Amino acid sequence: VRIALDAMGTDHAPRSEVAGALGALREFGPEVEIILVGDRSVIEREIERHDDVPAGRLRIHHASERVLPGESPAAAVRRKPDSSISVGLRLQQQGDADAFISAGSTGAVMAASLFILRPLPGVDRPTVATFLPTGAQPVLLVDAGTNVDCKPRHLLQFAHLGHIYVQDALGVDRPRVGLLNIGEEPEKGDERAVETFRLLSGDPGLNFVGNVEGRAIVEGVCDVLVADGFVGNVLLKFYESVAQFIVALLQRELTRFDLAMDMTGVLRALDYSEYGGAPLLGVNGVSIICHGGSTPKAIQNAVRVAAQAVQSGMVQDMASELAQTVSRVGGNGA
Amino acid sequence: VRIALDAMGTDHAPRSEVAGALGALREFGPEVEIILVGDRSVIEREIERHDDVPAGRLRIHHASERVLPGESPAAAVRRKPDSSISVGLRLQQQGDADAFISAGSTGAVMAASLFILRPLPGVDRPTVATFLPTGAQPVLLVDAGTNVDCKPRHLLQFAHLGHIYVQDALGVDRPRVGLLNIGEEPEKGDERAVETFRLLSGDPGLNFVGNVEGRAIVEGVCDVLVADGFVGNVLLKFYESVAQFIVALLQRELTRFDLAMDMTGVLRALDYSEYGGAPLLGVNGVSIICHGGSTPKAIQNAVRVAAQAVQSGMVQDMASELAQTVSRVGGNGA
Repeated sequence: VRIALDAMGTDHAPRSEVAGALGALREFGPEVEIILVGDRSVIEREIERHDDVPAGRLRIHHASERVLPGESPAAAVRRKPDSSISVGLRLQQQGDADAFISAGSTGAVMAASLFILRPLPGVDRPTVATFLPTGAQPVLLVDAGTNVDCKPRHLLQFAHLGHIYVQDALGVDRPRVGLLNIGEEPEKGDERAVETFRLLSGDPGLNFVGNVEGRAIVEGVCDVLVADGFVGNVLLKFYESVAQFIVALLQRELTRFDLAMDMTGVLRALDYSEYGGAPLLGVNGVSIICHGGSTPKAIQNAVRVAAQAVQSGMVQDMASELAQTVSRVGGNGA
Repeated sequence: VRIALDAMGTDHAPRSEVAGALGALREFGPEVEIILVGDRSVIEREIERHDDVPAGRLRIHHASERVLPGESPAAAVRRKPDSSISVGLRLQQQGDADAFISAGSTGAVMAASLFILRPLPGVDRPTVATFLPTGAQPVLLVDAGTNVDCKPRHLLQFAHLGHIYVQDALGVDRPRVGLLNIGEEPEKGDERAVETFRLLSGDPGLNFVGNVEGRAIVEGVCDVLVADGFVGNVLLKFYESVAQFIVALLQRELTRFDLAMDMTGVLRALDYSEYGGAPLLGVNGVSIICHGGSTPKAIQNAVRVAAQAVQSGMVQDMASELAQTVSRVGGNGA
């Protein structure tokens, strides 16, 4: 598996990228190779700081430009054809890499992935999904903020993309798909939810378990949670902050009782960067999006996510499942 | 303050209601009187179990019917004119009570409140708001699940109703109003959010502080958080369950370290039943909605909420603020 890794993406690029890449090369066998994409001299200087570089498995591919924070994604793609993002994606599109990872501007990675890799037939809107930790298996939230104002048919497509991703990434057989809603009955929710329920429940290709309320998410009642990106994003950001808030409250209590406690174990269970980056689902290739603040460990985990997606044949599985869905309910006509 | 309390609402009616009423009468001075509404003989039998009944401040008003769980709210209002809900609300409408409290079917209480008390001029959709605990002052979430498919002008009305409620209930001067969104910039979010931002930011009657992301809620960056009821409901239910989930995780850790700890203090900070029932905002009267599982303490807190609403002149304040808003941006034309 040859992974093109944007070396210019994180807030402390290329430090996290290089350290994460080296960690991944140690973790995986010779089946994984990494191509660092970006300013060759900067990357070389960073690599020199390490003395455990495995020969032949870490390469550099030069890219002369870099997308800066705050740049318009569309403009960045158009005006910087030699950015580390566009160059890395073209490596995959030309068959010189099997996957791409970037912690750069999410908008630019999405725009460039769409432009260079192209959407899969039957996908109107590619989507970024994120795992939410629960008491049981993690739940894949799709969409987690990429697409707002979604139509029911978009949510149906998200369900299929999430279904394949969870199946291939976590090895879950026939993942349970739930629809985020404000009540369990089919007629509950807004107009979009009611119509989406109809589409999901009538789809023989999905293991649809019905509506899932906010309170049931952490109980692990489904493997894939379908939502419009507006609600998904609010939920995701809220989850992160609530976890921190409650742990802080508890620590205050502990101090009162003169107790000290290492909360690391608990926070780890809630740290969704554990799952590495999030793949852009619905494009014709593997494109993994990471946080700008990614640590070396997060980058290393993103490499694992990318390798798994390639080895499981995720993109091919999505293409064939979506082709069947399109033939049943219609799609973007592509 | 004369409060009509539906005695037939909770899952263990009238036990919680009677105990809660007696608790409230002990808490408050002679300025508070409670009228228990429901089956007289059942209520009398329950009162006999107590020996601390203050003379003259607890009365019973008989109602021969009761709305049952699962009944259609509209049908319950139409077919049971002598239900404890309708009778209690009519006491207020006729001037024989100043407020109404019920832990019965939320839908029926809402339908009957609309039918008997009527909406305030300028209000298209009355709304139920709920306080979310934060690290600082609690935040009023409006709407918390009553209205889905809201238009921007409905959200503007919610902002005004929430603004007055927080001002009158918590004594906050010029409460900060935020719009729940997926980014801070005015152009972020779905179509509804963008248009609502425009309405809120252009309203001189509101102290609008801009968009609030999911992660900022627990930081207490606003006093009133405006949201469509779909997102609000998901958020609210998620919050409750996440709090329990994280505390359970922590307790597991504590057990590993052979520590036992009383989590009551922490859970109390997160227990929004502390705030008692939630008022139906936007009707011409005080109607407080409680959970069906309300404990005596929750009922007692609801009495406090009701008394505060009456004493602060909340309904009059809302009427005059909404009249000004209607004259600026239009409303339901009433």
